[in-house]
Amino acid sequence: MIICKVVGNLWATKKDDKLNGYKLLVVRSHGEGETPETFVAVDTIGAGIGEDVLVTKGSVARNVLREKDSPVDAVVVGIIDSVEVDAQFLERG
Amino acid sequence: MIICKVVGNLWATKKDDKLNGYKLLVVRSHGEGETPETFVAVDTIGAGIGEDVLVTKGSVARNVLREKDSPVDAVVVGIIDSVEVDAQFLERG
Amino acid sequence: MIICKVVGNLWATKKDDKLNGYKLLVVRSHGEGETPETFVAVDTIGAGIGEDVLVTKGSVARNVLREKDSPVDAVVVGIIDSVEVDAQFLERG
Amino acid sequence: MIICKVVGNLWATKKDDKLNGYKLLVVRSHGEGETPETFVAVDTIGAGIGEDVLVTKGSVARNVLREKDSPVDAVVVGIIDSVEVDAQFLERG
Amino acid sequence: MIICKVVGNLWATKKDDKLNGYKLLVVRSHGEGETPETFVAVDTIGAGIGEDVLVTKGSVARNVLREKDSPVDAVVVGIIDSVEVDAQFLERG
Repeated sequence: MIICKVVGNLWATKKDDKLNGYKLLVVRSHGEGETPETFVAVDTIGAGIGEDVLVTKGSVARNVLREKDSPVDAVVVGIIDSVEVDAQFLERG
Repeated sequence: MIICKVVGNLWATKKDDKLNGYKLLVVRSHGEGETPETFVAVDTIGAGIGEDVLVTKGSVARNVLREKDSPVDAVVVGIIDSVEVDAQFLERG
Repeated sequence: MIICKVVGNLWATKKDDKLNGYKLLVVRSHGEGETPETFVAVDTIGAGIGEDVLVTKGSVARNVLREKDSPVDAVVVGIIDSVEVDAQFLERG
Repeated sequence: MIICKVVGNLWATKKDDKLNGYKLLVVRSHGEGETPETFVAVDTIGAGIGEDVLVTKGSVARNVLREKDSPVDAVVVGIIDSVEVDAQFLERG
Repeated sequence: MIICKVVGNLWATKKDDKLNGYKLLVVRSHGEGETPETFVAVDTIGAGIGEDVLVTKGSVARNVLREKDSPVDAVVVGIIDSVEVDAQFLERG
């Protein structure tokens, strides 16, 4: 799973029927010293703009959806309360 | 899912039978400050050149196709009406 | 799917039995302004050196093979006749 | 699988039910001369901060979990005792 | 599949039971002009340090293993005898 920040919303009227009813969030990964990646995840948790979330990618993402055959490759699986990272390890890579 | 722009069309006469009848679009991802990635997605929605689309990648992509055993790893799942991103989050990464 | 050029052949006598009989091609992705990626794909179409091909990656790649449990993560699914990309979109990213 | 160091912990109270009971670790990949990648993996082995671990990613990761339909795309599958790499190969790429 | 060189061995005493009995090799990808990627693959072929091997990644990798539900996302599927790449294509990308 990757740590992302919810940075926006996305609307698509014309879309595959299997996406109907899902809330689409624009999220942005943020790892120490890494190039951020912006993508779109389905949210079933109720995350809001600016919140840090945990995002699952790939075929297992659909496991949180009611329809298992949804064409969804990224979902918000949790809202992060806190992350505790030991600074010495970040420095040493 | 990733946000892409439809930038072109692609034709392949000699191809696997399971790709017959699918429209192939050349799409290009565009994330703020990221290196764009150009690839080919099957379109079942009717997207046109220049439109911003939502693309699903990986094994779940085939879920929108009539043939579930198609060798397709990317599909256009929606045409984007609008994206609303809070600028402050983009700056702060 | 990604657009690649067939750049070479590869031979491996000692290999998993499930790869027997498959032709292995060295292919190289080429996207506008992107770092090319060189990898190996199974070819069931009959592509030759120097041809531009469409390559499917991941677990759905095996869908074009006769053995569905092959340890194959990339296959050539088509030989590209032509690609038509609108230059203005490439420039604007 | 990739070689990572456990660099921190992560807490998320509001999360998908299928993540309940799993310990979430922040891990950081470290390959010679590569950009490290920081992400979150489920730990079922009992790894601690600072330990080098082996991490499996993708849909097969859930194979170590009691619930096969968990929305988990990365797990710690082993604690590394030692890695022996021949330096000459690292230099020659 | 990707072309890698076997660069080392890795030992992990404390690991998931489903990894027991598998030999773990440290491999390093080497594509012309690309950043190498170092990771760990299961070897069922008998590859040795310094040999060039073909590695399959992702969920199909487990197809060469006796246990189909192993948490393994990369395996050595062949030992490369020779690779023949036409130099002109490498130069032209």
